[in-house]
Amino acid sequence: MDRDRILLTPGPLTTTLRTKLAMLKDWGSWDADFNAVTASLRSRLLDVVHGQQTHVVVPLQGSGTFSVEAAVATVVPHDGHVLVLDNGAYCKRAARLSQMMGRQVSVLAFGEDEAVSAAALDERLATSPGITHVILIHCETGTGVENPLVEVAAVCERHGKGLIVDAMSSFGALPIDARSVRFDALIAASGKCLEGVPGMGFVLLRQAILDSCAGRSQSLAMDLHDQHVYMGKTGQWRFTPPTHVVAALSEAVTQYVEEGGQPARLARYADNCRTLIDGMAALGFRPLLRAELQAPIIVTFHAPAHPAYDFRRFYEGAKARGFMLYPGKLTQIETFRVGCIGAIGRNEMNQAVQAVADTLREMGIPSGAPAR
Amino acid sequence: MDRDRILLTPGPLTTTLRTKLAMLKDWGSWDADFNAVTASLRSRLLDVVHGQQTHVVVPLQGSGTFSVEAAVATVVPHDGHVLVLDNGAYCKRAARLSQMMGRQVSVLAFGEDEAVSAAALDERLATSPGITHVILIHCETGTGVENPLVEVAAVCERHGKGLIVDAMSSFGALPIDARSVRFDALIAASGKCLEGVPGMGFVLLRQAILDSCAGRSQSLAMDLHDQHVYMGKTGQWRFTPPTHVVAALSEAVTQYVEEGGQPARLARYADNCRTLIDGMAALGFRPLLRAELQAPIIVTFHAPAHPAYDFRRFYEGAKARGFMLYPGKLTQIETFRVGCIGAIGRNEMNQAVQAVADTLREMGIPSGAPAR
Repeated sequence: MDRDRILLTPGPLTTTLRTKLAMLKDWGSWDADFNAVTASLRSRLLDVVHGQQTHVVVPLQGSGTFSVEAAVATVVPHDGHVLVLDNGAYCKRAARLSQMMGRQVSVLAFGEDEAVSAAALDERLATSPGITHVILIHCETGTGVENPLVEVAAVCERHGKGLIVDAMSSFGALPIDARSVRFDALIAASGKCLEGVPGMGFVLLRQAILDSCAGRSQSLAMDLHDQHVYMGKTGQWRFTPPTHVVAALSEAVTQYVEEGGQPARLARYADNCRTLIDGMAALGFRPLLRAELQAPIIVTFHAPAHPAYDFRRFYEGAKARGFMLYPGKLTQIETFRVGCIGAIGRNEMNQAVQAVADTLREMGIPSGAPAR
Repeated sequence: MDRDRILLTPGPLTTTLRTKLAMLKDWGSWDADFNAVTASLRSRLLDVVHGQQTHVVVPLQGSGTFSVEAAVATVVPHDGHVLVLDNGAYCKRAARLSQMMGRQVSVLAFGEDEAVSAAALDERLATSPGITHVILIHCETGTGVENPLVEVAAVCERHGKGLIVDAMSSFGALPIDARSVRFDALIAASGKCLEGVPGMGFVLLRQAILDSCAGRSQSLAMDLHDQHVYMGKTGQWRFTPPTHVVAALSEAVTQYVEEGGQPARLARYADNCRTLIDGMAALGFRPLLRAELQAPIIVTFHAPAHPAYDFRRFYEGAKARGFMLYPGKLTQIETFRVGCIGAIGRNEMNQAVQAVADTLREMGIPSGAPAR
């Protein structure tokens, strides 16, 4: 039976039918009606982090990574020096894209199963005065760890360094307050915790640094300053926007506000995460992260130690029962990941655990317990 | 009454309901089912230009301009020298993005109301041996002129120069045969003559040059070689794909094939274009281009000479009657544009002409005739 499956993946994720139905209309990208959708969306995205007084938001076509690259290209001068706080795959990606575009890059490395340390950053900045910008991944999706945004931002501010935050998988769910947390750029995307469909990112840029960003980008497509100026003048995107994706995100944000905004979204995801971890624990599974590091976004579990375990078969078993799991992204340890985000609640998480239990039984694996 | 309007714009355009309905499903971007959609789409895109033996196709997130930039970044070496055949706004954009990323750029300029000349290119290449690549816009959407792809490609091949073709608004409608027309890269996008929704582009790369493209791009997001290699290995996009846009394009291509492919699409658009020009001529309007230069994609009309004419009011009048026109893109002459593409036929074009006639009457303009 071809029933849609629940995506337990960190974006694309399961969206509401109402969000998808918003795509059943073709918009003229030049027209005032569509410009109004863009303007309202931009304003409501600023509201999510209380950024109306301090920041502007610039949407950008493409995946979230395009927006990360655009943020670095726009914010960091050609002779800038970026320090990446690295505790996972997405940190390494940010370092790589910064390096490719010719910026000097240093990395402060942490274990993948720990949060980055604001104290370590403090020390590093004290001894490396050449660093101009710090890149932080708020929730490192490679493992699901939440990094200490508030503390890192305070250290950057004290040292007078720019801060670029990849908030891809935290924006809308974890609290971010632009009134008290200083950042130069903060990046997120449509298909994550706001529960839109994938196809666009957006970057919050601090108003105080905007003017200095003019003419910095070596990429026309990824010049957020140019996109911002053009939008201010015309209300339009510089290049063809993904109109249906924009309309879907706008509809998703309306539902986000109706649900109660960030606190309500966080509460639902936290409940999803608890339900998942408790249910999986009863099957013997153990999460990679200590509880206090776990963001309620995506959970990394150790693979079961049982010799009959094979991720491909495990995945197919869960899929046949209606749930899409996600592969692990660690190089050293065998893991898999399960997302807690999307238009899903406790029912879906309980059903997912049941699907995992049934799959284990089918595979002849009595327990999900990992090797000790 | 809130009835959807017909978009007479060169993308986004009016799509079929069937295409839009394909977006009512959330896909896991890592899953085999979605990989199969991507693979089938890639193969069918090659079929459109008979490129299975000669080219690969690499899809890319973002608008068409992102794909143009990626093509230049991937195909042209850092010390390459690009010659842009310039007869309009999109040519100038290609020159600008090439220059921004550090490539040497020269421009061979032509009038906006004429096609670029293969003979002039031949002369230029004979005297400028340093040029490595030529950029041609197949159909310059700024005016609607069709440029001589076959002749330009032959000149490039004879001189041993690479050719990059922006076929954004021609792909799928105008004939392109990769078996006989040599190009290194040819770029198009989802929301144009294939009648998908906007949100992704794609680039056909000549297999013979693929290996030389490794490591050339200074942008991670826009590295088509890396995207190609990763897709070959995993079947997946490197970064989150716009899953709903991809599904819609796949469904649109299915309908494209059902309609009869490129010859049928061209025949419908040519009929749309004739119906439009004849109808508008009866109202006194005059197209900018001579008939033999006019691609059946988008038509630029001179603005009426009558003093009561005002584009904004004209646009609103047509919109109130259900049709979205498009502003002109010329700097010297006042014009407006009307697209002939999208899921529309003779009925819609006749109704559009009627809407224009009614709008003129409402504005007190007896004739659409321009100043002589």
